[in-house]
Amino acid sequence: MAHSPQEIRLMPSEQPRWVIIGAGFAGINLAKTLRRAPVQIVMLDRNNFHQFQPLLYQVATCGIEPDGIIYPIRKLFEKQSNLTFRMARVDRIRTADRTVETDTGSLTYDKLVIATGSSTNFFGNQGLERRASGMKDIREALQIRSRILFNLERAAATTDPAKREALTNFVVVGGGPAGVETAGALAEFKTHILRKDYPDLDPQLMKIFLIQSGNRILKSMSEQSSQRALRDLKQMGVEVLLHQRVQEYDGSNVRTDQGLEIPCRNLTWTAGVKGRFPEGLPSDQIQAGRIQVDGFLRIAGIDNVYIIGDVACVTEDAQSKGHPMVAPVAIQQGNLLGKNLLRELDGIPPVPFRYRDKGSLATIGKKRAVADLPGMRLQGFAAWLIWCFVHVMSLIGFRNRLLVLTHWVASYFTYEKGNRFITRNPEPKSD
Amino acid sequence: MAHSPQEIRLMPSEQPRWVIIGAGFAGINLAKTLRRAPVQIVMLDRNNFHQFQPLLYQVATCGIEPDGIIYPIRKLFEKQSNLTFRMARVDRIRTADRTVETDTGSLTYDKLVIATGSSTNFFGNQGLERRASGMKDIREALQIRSRILFNLERAAATTDPAKREALTNFVVVGGGPAGVETAGALAEFKTHILRKDYPDLDPQLMKIFLIQSGNRILKSMSEQSSQRALRDLKQMGVEVLLHQRVQEYDGSNVRTDQGLEIPCRNLTWTAGVKGRFPEGLPSDQIQAGRIQVDGFLRIAGIDNVYIIGDVACVTEDAQSKGHPMVAPVAIQQGNLLGKNLLRELDGIPPVPFRYRDKGSLATIGKKRAVADLPGMRLQGFAAWLIWCFVHVMSLIGFRNRLLVLTHWVASYFTYEKGNRFITRNPEPKSD
Repeated sequence: MAHSPQEIRLMPSEQPRWVIIGAGFAGINLAKTLRRAPVQIVMLDRNNFHQFQPLLYQVATCGIEPDGIIYPIRKLFEKQSNLTFRMARVDRIRTADRTVETDTGSLTYDKLVIATGSSTNFFGNQGLERRASGMKDIREALQIRSRILFNLERAAATTDPAKREALTNFVVVGGGPAGVETAGALAEFKTHILRKDYPDLDPQLMKIFLIQSGNRILKSMSEQSSQRALRDLKQMGVEVLLHQRVQEYDGSNVRTDQGLEIPCRNLTWTAGVKGRFPEGLPSDQIQAGRIQVDGFLRIAGIDNVYIIGDVACVTEDAQSKGHPMVAPVAIQQGNLLGKNLLRELDGIPPVPFRYRDKGSLATIGKKRAVADLPGMRLQGFAAWLIWCFVHVMSLIGFRNRLLVLTHWVASYFTYEKGNRFITRNPEPKSD
Repeated sequence: MAHSPQEIRLMPSEQPRWVIIGAGFAGINLAKTLRRAPVQIVMLDRNNFHQFQPLLYQVATCGIEPDGIIYPIRKLFEKQSNLTFRMARVDRIRTADRTVETDTGSLTYDKLVIATGSSTNFFGNQGLERRASGMKDIREALQIRSRILFNLERAAATTDPAKREALTNFVVVGGGPAGVETAGALAEFKTHILRKDYPDLDPQLMKIFLIQSGNRILKSMSEQSSQRALRDLKQMGVEVLLHQRVQEYDGSNVRTDQGLEIPCRNLTWTAGVKGRFPEGLPSDQIQAGRIQVDGFLRIAGIDNVYIIGDVACVTEDAQSKGHPMVAPVAIQQGNLLGKNLLRELDGIPPVPFRYRDKGSLATIGKKRAVADLPGMRLQGFAAWLIWCFVHVMSLIGFRNRLLVLTHWVASYFTYEKGNRFITRNPEPKSD
């Protein structure tokens, strides 16, 4: 859509206008904290829904349906009268005249918060960018699902063994939680669904590879959790390839820097993310795809602009590389900025951001998870129960919690997964 | 995808191969009837799911989620060991050498059943075909939903009253059950959702028009039901325009043959369907987009090919124009053909098709429906309860029945609708 020069329509208001770009964890927690503030909050997002990214991999592998993990933004703020939502993709920020330019029109602000999150990082590899699937939003997750099922259909129909091999090899790149969880979910799909749905396809044909460049998976977690996850994945039949870096992918063959080649038409890329933000920010404040901010989440030299969530890199903190790009950081930054802005209204000085790390969790499969909690490490069933509890409670809305919980309880007892539909074009990078 | 010359892979079998194209009501009822037949049944469909077309309009208007009304074909026939499913689009039939050609490969048959259903008929109008949305499959329904919500977002954001008018005018063309049900559902959306979701948009801006070329809506039903449906629609705020035929649509303006013009960016077309079938059938047997068959559902002059469902036009019957293109006819034809094929295996002569019309139903809104049943006409609440019961019981699978029923019961008491997501490109005719 062409850029529209006109202004975005808003109700006339005497109050200062605070614009929040992005309805992810950071943006919605900020907005909720400001629910009683005497300001006109304008929330902008490319989508009309909030999405719960930690469970995208379950949508991609037929575990749950999309409507369990996405939630309409308008419904979320139905009762918050100081907030107006506008669906718009922000293209550029003009800090000099306090204006954001979107595909729907422009908008001036008194304060601006950038909470635009992150997107898949292919590190400039064109072949990967064109052919592999990222898994950062619901459309990509549905596209991966469609491609998995479509390729299994093609594998069942083809008489060519070489073609069948590429169609039934599944490669997941990246040994972080998203990659481990995806590989584990594919292994469960193989064990419990493939045999039943595709009686005409030898289940042993389906092979799952997890490629990790470093020397262990889940490297942000404890050594003990890494080892346990590795053992679980191997028991579930996943081939974990360490010290391999993917170099080339042409859509039917993946090659690593160690010379390993795997014929494969299913490549899911979870090996990198980068900040996503509009144009117009000073380039010297951008490092490794994220915007550098001080402890109060402000960019140096620009007044009234704040950055929170994945896209923000707090450099004053102990970790100079910034905090991990995960939901808890985004939530805490959203909450803190909200409180600081309220403090400012009351003439109280702000508090700097300090990340309270409550631990890390990753699930490998049913009854298999690892948890590094403060003062405690758990594996297996107990960790899995905690993982389920934390994720269900983090979902927004009673309806979504109930939907996801029902799916999980049903699949716990029946090993049955959600419906298996090919509803999108299985080729990557289409709508 | 290019046409593949190779054969579709199947398990080797000594049994005769019966190929069924299409997993709609006709195809699945036929296949179920043949579940114990000593033959190799191959079911082909473009999709990997069966879809329940009568409720597509509820998906389009945010009433229910897609997974309530579509069902995986492989799961449907999980326990039927004589049936193999192949996802394939059939392009051509070569009756001379008993072969079907698909996008996945070719396949020979001993018997062939064409149950390929119907698609939207724009009667050759290019502008409509490009710009209006049909509502014959789940992708189209989701696309209509995305467009409705997207246009309301645009309407909330624009400062241009003329643009806003076109974005908030909803035109439904076609006064049959699909058109009446869609217009009614949009009216309920306006009354119960718009005010809550779009507090920044005057609800009176949203206008719903139902355009019908004839002198009454629901013309396949009784005069009494037509009148009641018209009254209900008017009470719900729908503007019903009779004796108007849509002539031109450029994407933002619709014009009728009576010179009426409505600015409108939302045009849903339910005013016509036509049979959909592969190439290679004798053109002299095709009339008004359907294939002419005898009472035993065979085409004249071609052995071992049968036609059932919307695409079949039984000309020997009392009605020379063929039966209505509705689910009950398809179900009865599928069942009858199945029984006739089993009879043939036992050397018993077949029975000709006779349609048992059990009546017609159409719903206008909550507690508003009309029912023309044998010996009885009902309106209002009683008709609506029957409509709900018939539709829930016609859904396939306990899970889908439960999902749809839960949605309906919840929305009955709360007036709340399903989640409102824009997940597809809102432009018609993409992916």
